[in-house]
Amino acid sequence: MTVTQVAAYAAPAAKAPLERTTVPRRPVGAHDVLIDIKYAGICHSDIHQVRDGWGEGLYPMVPGHEIAGVVAEVGPEVTRFAVGDRVGVGCIVDTCRTCEYCLAGQEQYCVEGITGTYNAVDRQGERTYGGYSSHIVVDENYTVRIPDGLALDVAAPLLCAGITLYSPLKHWQAGPGKKVAVVGLGGLGHMGVKIAHALGAEVTVLSQSLRKREDGLKLGASHYYATSDETTFEKLAGSFDLILSTVSAPLDLGAYLGLLRVDGALVNVGAPEEPVALNLFSVIGGRKTLAGSMIGGIAETQEMLDFCAEHGLGSEIELIRADEVNEAYERVLASDVRYRFVIDASTI
Amino acid sequence: MTVTQVAAYAAPAAKAPLERTTVPRRPVGAHDVLIDIKYAGICHSDIHQVRDGWGEGLYPMVPGHEIAGVVAEVGPEVTRFAVGDRVGVGCIVDTCRTCEYCLAGQEQYCVEGITGTYNAVDRQGERTYGGYSSHIVVDENYTVRIPDGLALDVAAPLLCAGITLYSPLKHWQAGPGKKVAVVGLGGLGHMGVKIAHALGAEVTVLSQSLRKREDGLKLGASHYYATSDETTFEKLAGSFDLILSTVSAPLDLGAYLGLLRVDGALVNVGAPEEPVALNLFSVIGGRKTLAGSMIGGIAETQEMLDFCAEHGLGSEIELIRADEVNEAYERVLASDVRYRFVIDASTI
Repeated sequence: MTVTQVAAYAAPAAKAPLERTTVPRRPVGAHDVLIDIKYAGICHSDIHQVRDGWGEGLYPMVPGHEIAGVVAEVGPEVTRFAVGDRVGVGCIVDTCRTCEYCLAGQEQYCVEGITGTYNAVDRQGERTYGGYSSHIVVDENYTVRIPDGLALDVAAPLLCAGITLYSPLKHWQAGPGKKVAVVGLGGLGHMGVKIAHALGAEVTVLSQSLRKREDGLKLGASHYYATSDETTFEKLAGSFDLILSTVSAPLDLGAYLGLLRVDGALVNVGAPEEPVALNLFSVIGGRKTLAGSMIGGIAETQEMLDFCAEHGLGSEIELIRADEVNEAYERVLASDVRYRFVIDASTI
Repeated sequence: MTVTQVAAYAAPAAKAPLERTTVPRRPVGAHDVLIDIKYAGICHSDIHQVRDGWGEGLYPMVPGHEIAGVVAEVGPEVTRFAVGDRVGVGCIVDTCRTCEYCLAGQEQYCVEGITGTYNAVDRQGERTYGGYSSHIVVDENYTVRIPDGLALDVAAPLLCAGITLYSPLKHWQAGPGKKVAVVGLGGLGHMGVKIAHALGAEVTVLSQSLRKREDGLKLGASHYYATSDETTFEKLAGSFDLILSTVSAPLDLGAYLGLLRVDGALVNVGAPEEPVALNLFSVIGGRKTLAGSMIGGIAETQEMLDFCAEHGLGSEIELIRADEVNEAYERVLASDVRYRFVIDASTI
């Protein structure tokens, strides 16, 4: 295959609605796989980037970094995949491959920066376009295998939402005997509940209201509290080993740090754009940690998919047609999705 | 000995200068030792409490939680100390002794709270008075041994300043191959440099100016940078495994977090009273930790003293007479001390 135009949904300009178009895909190189995309998840950050929330957006922009599909063609040097394999692509399609972090399998922290699956210029100088598309060409080293036990539609969101939660849960050793709280029960949070529970931790959801309580308990939480109820912070003081915050609303950090045990960690995988106020005494008493975590490495993403397949964990999804994407964006912004929209790529 | 009045320097009221007076010491109980105080260090927090910076100060207040002396009498059940032993007392004279943290030797994080060496009411309902005094009565379980190799005057500040730095350096595994920065070269910071260097780490001082550069290098730092020079933050970006901040001035947290490597930690042992602004993306990229640490446990304090004796590490001190204490306070506030004032208790 030479450079080919493939069907895609793109935002032609900042803040413009997405519309059907075509974008170029590079020829399948020696180490590339051509993926026939079956499903693409909608991540909150897609909306943010389409609307140029971070500035410097590249248009037309094809979002999508939660990609599940089937290998349609492989380059001559490809060793890890064959035509017909079920595969996924997440947020990273290339890194420097030589820095200490790349060599350690922590490509997400590559010192030269990652090449994003979309809204980026790759190391060959070409624009990248994401998963709201019929096909994508990706280096096999940035492609992962989706185990047979996992349906492709519910697997797609694992490529970002799944790994974003799995990585810190493993790093901060969630498991039997550990009390883990997940702040926010959305696309990220609901995967945090599932994975933390499967890892053996005792899981609590901290959500603004009790509206999704029943869901949370079904997903694996043992406890569910409303953060709008101030007594929650008294009741749960000093309770948790680990709190994962998935929300982008400004948190009262001191209040959440107060929920941690000695040596506990409040780890942010979501965050507001604006700075938040922190009294450092909140971390001094109790030797507490305020930290962050960003997606995960490629090998760890594979490990996460294997773990999810083994435990039967997929994302809770609402499958949509591609022409429903703009409406879906509005519903995501209104927190009106349980829990991840996934585009059926056959409708693109 | 029954309740006895002993000589002390006390602040009769909030913000009043310290003056010579007497305060009561309890009878030597079954598990108590009576200590003939030889030296008492002046900690910045002494000044803060005397001036009622945290509110709720108890007056008259005898400050001092960096105490070195000699055992003058022991209670009938005392097993660990004998008359004539060289001993120290730090910030803690009692805790609940039954919570998980006390049982784990982390008395500083006792769930019921510590009984402070001064400015506290103890578990028997009596006021505590600190080390600016001729004698003190302390439970042997909250008393540590000062090894022979360590002079009592330079050992006194180790009981707070030493353990405050030693504990996080050990917890965050400072040692060979690790790059550690110490922010601020004062009473705390200079011990951080000494201990981190003795642990085998490569030490950098980050100080407002280069005024104390020569001292810093002598104390064990390999590098010394001025934080008033903005290029410092560019030059050192992504450099450190661990940064210990000892300052109480508001830090630009984002700037310091930018100096950390992936998985690095910025640990605060000093802190401003007021909240500081933090953009959480500073911890998300690079999975960084913002943490705090508060003194250390009793067993760890003993370990620290043994380590300091083994490596010949004492505090750099200026020995003063008790009647110079008010002047010394002014000099501490003006950062005009290299590096710790110690009161010769024979002058009280």
